[in-house]
Amino acid sequence: MKARVRVTLKTGVLDPQGKAIGHALEGMGFAGLGEIRQGKLIEIDLAERDPAKARAQVEEMCRKLLANPVMERYAIDIEG
Amino acid sequence: MKARVRVTLKTGVLDPQGKAIGHALEGMGFAGLGEIRQGKLIEIDLAERDPAKARAQVEEMCRKLLANPVMERYAIDIEG
Repeated sequence: MKARVRVTLKTGVLDPQGKAIGHALEGMGFAGLGEIRQGKLIEIDLAERDPAKARAQVEEMCRKLLANPVMERYAIDIEG
Repeated sequence: MKARVRVTLKTGVLDPQGKAIGHALEGMGFAGLGEIRQGKLIEIDLAERDPAKARAQVEEMCRKLLANPVMERYAIDIEG
């Protein structure tokens, strides 16, 4: 199965990349923009066929490598 | 509303970051891993309240700034 991990900065952590994107979009004429945050997206192909086990495996990857728990949070989507 | 943009490298474009993550995970003992790709995630708060118009606006942002159409493709999720 396929897992998709979204790693984003925690609320309150300064996100200069997101701010830069916001300024660029405003400079191009886009209006009505609120906050913009940039994060990482990691797509993983897994041999595991059980969704619950796949999620547990990816959860462990996030804790051990993919996300920095001090500044980042993560969300996992598992697809068939 | 909130838009979530996933920008990923097109199939066939070399992804050294994804490869590095894969090697690191294997080195930590994770097995059964297939391809791993890293992409960007951009979350945008929009004043626009109409989902179709919000999507059209974000589509334009992707074409003009957020994605490099030569190497990357993008997917947009709109949330209420």
